[in-house]
Amino acid sequence: MANMKITPRDVDFAKWYTDVVMAAHLASYTEVKGCIAIEPNGYAIWEEMQKILDQKFKELGHVNVQMPLLIPENLLKKEADLVEGFAPEVAWVTMGGNKNLEERFCIRPTSETMFSDYFKNHITSYKDLPLLYNQWCNVMRWEKETRPFLRSREFLWQEGHTIHETKEEAEEETKRMMDVYKWFHHDILAIPSITGRKTEKEKFAGADYTLTNEALMYNGVSLQASTSHFFGQRFSKAYDIKYTTRDNKQDYVYQTSWGTTTRMIGALIMVHSDDKGLVLPPNIAPRKVVIIPIGKDEEVLSWCEKINQELNENNIKSFIDQTDKSPGFKFAEAEVLGIPLRIEIGKRDLDNNQITFTRRDTSEKIIKKLEIDIKKEVSELLNTIQQDMYNRALKRRDELTFEAKTIEDVKKIMNTQPGFIKADWCGNPECELKMKEINGLKSRCILEDKMLTGKCVVCGREAKELVVWGIQY
Amino acid sequence: MANMKITPRDVDFAKWYTDVVMAAHLASYTEVKGCIAIEPNGYAIWEEMQKILDQKFKELGHVNVQMPLLIPENLLKKEADLVEGFAPEVAWVTMGGNKNLEERFCIRPTSETMFSDYFKNHITSYKDLPLLYNQWCNVMRWEKETRPFLRSREFLWQEGHTIHETKEEAEEETKRMMDVYKWFHHDILAIPSITGRKTEKEKFAGADYTLTNEALMYNGVSLQASTSHFFGQRFSKAYDIKYTTRDNKQDYVYQTSWGTTTRMIGALIMVHSDDKGLVLPPNIAPRKVVIIPIGKDEEVLSWCEKINQELNENNIKSFIDQTDKSPGFKFAEAEVLGIPLRIEIGKRDLDNNQITFTRRDTSEKIIKKLEIDIKKEVSELLNTIQQDMYNRALKRRDELTFEAKTIEDVKKIMNTQPGFIKADWCGNPECELKMKEINGLKSRCILEDKMLTGKCVVCGREAKELVVWGIQY
Repeated sequence: MANMKITPRDVDFAKWYTDVVMAAHLASYTEVKGCIAIEPNGYAIWEEMQKILDQKFKELGHVNVQMPLLIPENLLKKEADLVEGFAPEVAWVTMGGNKNLEERFCIRPTSETMFSDYFKNHITSYKDLPLLYNQWCNVMRWEKETRPFLRSREFLWQEGHTIHETKEEAEEETKRMMDVYKWFHHDILAIPSITGRKTEKEKFAGADYTLTNEALMYNGVSLQASTSHFFGQRFSKAYDIKYTTRDNKQDYVYQTSWGTTTRMIGALIMVHSDDKGLVLPPNIAPRKVVIIPIGKDEEVLSWCEKINQELNENNIKSFIDQTDKSPGFKFAEAEVLGIPLRIEIGKRDLDNNQITFTRRDTSEKIIKKLEIDIKKEVSELLNTIQQDMYNRALKRRDELTFEAKTIEDVKKIMNTQPGFIKADWCGNPECELKMKEINGLKSRCILEDKMLTGKCVVCGREAKELVVWGIQY
Repeated sequence: MANMKITPRDVDFAKWYTDVVMAAHLASYTEVKGCIAIEPNGYAIWEEMQKILDQKFKELGHVNVQMPLLIPENLLKKEADLVEGFAPEVAWVTMGGNKNLEERFCIRPTSETMFSDYFKNHITSYKDLPLLYNQWCNVMRWEKETRPFLRSREFLWQEGHTIHETKEEAEEETKRMMDVYKWFHHDILAIPSITGRKTEKEKFAGADYTLTNEALMYNGVSLQASTSHFFGQRFSKAYDIKYTTRDNKQDYVYQTSWGTTTRMIGALIMVHSDDKGLVLPPNIAPRKVVIIPIGKDEEVLSWCEKINQELNENNIKSFIDQTDKSPGFKFAEAEVLGIPLRIEIGKRDLDNNQITFTRRDTSEKIIKKLEIDIKKEVSELLNTIQQDMYNRALKRRDELTFEAKTIEDVKKIMNTQPGFIKADWCGNPECELKMKEINGLKSRCILEDKMLTGKCVVCGREAKELVVWGIQY
């Protein structure tokens, strides 16, 4: 496994990415074009993501449900923007049990439709509100160009759907969930994202507005990491989700939805990993520590077991690599798999009363006395790794975040090293489209920050907003 | 919520079942015929099932993966029995993004196909074996008649798929996983099932043999609760899953698969529940205890909080119902939701230095002193409820398990009270079909036990096996 050759990142970024996916056995291609098999190492990361987010969602009062996979065409069509936005990229079920169906179904590309229809039938009064629902499921979008994890026809995600009495409460929810994602990306995945509002052109089909977390990959390409949508009453009016208010009138609910996906596994690679393979931040790594005995000395093995036991008893997931492979092979394998910390113990270490730690992120070796408080030492070291990985990613992001005052600035940056480009914008979609002519630049999000010049970077007219631009996966 | 009228079980069993599903808010119908929305109360039960089984699977060395939802038709067709068994009841995707597809895909009815194709590409040597994989996912079977949880077009399940070097090892796995399910049904769901082998006619399409857990519902109808299949080399030959053996030859792997589904939520209703609503065994109930304060006295509320905290700190999930509803309404609601234990505390109780427990399963009231060790008392009471529920279900099953020596016996039983019918069988599928003429009786499983007469209950010729027969959901 560790022997697979990984193309260097600086030689061919796209090839490097796929090589890491394959070498770390995160996913593999299947006979279904654009759909991957998520292998045990990849799925274990997703399980960690699910565990952490699910706990947070529940702490905030959300409950899990499961809506049908299929959406009847007539139901999808009720919200005009939604059907326009998604219809060109859905998969259609037209036959069931060898018979042509009277009405075709699409496989959910997202579930606003089914949640809205459910809500409509399940609330009558303000006493039933809010409903704070979430579901973990698969969705399908018939993409033309795909890439493992980052963009595949089928992917796994969670989609939160909530309905509220007031606009204020729904907007608070929209923002609260964006903050949850920000926390998740920053503190757990060590990915420093930029948060803001999408432009009208880039917002979710059917939303009043969309908040987004935008992450920057090592090569300067940006990735939409998670989104939180405020629907206002658009869906509730289209799907007739009415209730009796406190003053005994009929009104439509205010609605939100929010989600993040398995594409974050791809982001972990593209932000943190290197030519030796996967590098995982400790807070998301399913296994934090690998212990590798050097030789078969009984005292060595007993020390390995003692350490392993102590770590696991203190909720630091570790394991001993007791396979027949050589230590060198085990080191390489631990590296390609991205295990944050490696502990080696050999007879000579014992004789010298020492123990060797190796950090995956920096390859730094740290030698400590055998008698240290192992759980404390490892726990601190994992925290340091987590913090350092975040800081390095932040430094990289900042290095690749540019300011452009003129369209020439933009072109120059894009021809040198793409990244996030901050530039003022007049709010006109035509100027947005003109930016796209430069290597496919798209608006990533609108920032609240002060504008650079006050003039639109494209047309020179008065600018309304500071926008982050970038090319995207 | 608690006000919904539930049809008495003895008046109309089918209506009673649906009423309980709806009154306890476990699931509701959707615009997609045969597909339900699993609501928070239903999904919470599924989450408990997942947590308990997933932990057990992992203890036994299984890892989770995720294969694509779609199966290309050509791949499905490789195993003749499988395609014959499933093709009539799959949903077909024929269009992607408004274009007709060159090859159609079916939505997985089960994933032997995709796992086999994956295995084929991922093993080379005996050193790669065994692979012990599982996935939690949705599957789809285009059933004609559906019923919430018990039989729906889409359902959630887990499907384990493993490959092994030897026949012995694979057969051990097949049996081990059947034992896991038996433990799960008996110790967690309090459902006493009968375990045995399926006949050739009833086994999984493509299996060498199928082991099954068959449960008996309150009305005497049987339910296939979980199955474990031994494939031998049938799939590995059809899908070319070869490896290099220890003596450097090429051989095909031995394979198993096993699964259980959201239909077990339906079984919990049909085995345990009553005219007041859902009754859940404590070991699977997401919330074990509800604490209901009578009145708004501060001392009462502080006692409720004290007890709630102590229970939760000791991993007994409890909550206080602090809504504005009347105590009577709260009692009824706790009953319809199937919360195993209710604790009421009012001012008068405090004055009398007492606390009242009410069992959901028996409605029995138990009065204790306030100073008892509450976590110990509750924990013991929950264990008693669990055990009593199992024993009652076992008694019911035994009462509805009959022995038939002649076809007249069979008819008489079926015309009086259906249930499990034990009867000898010659092994001839024609006799199996003749049994089906009696109210749709099917063989549930073959038992290892001693035969009753040694003569086939249908044709009178020499019998080979003792079979349990029943009508099924």
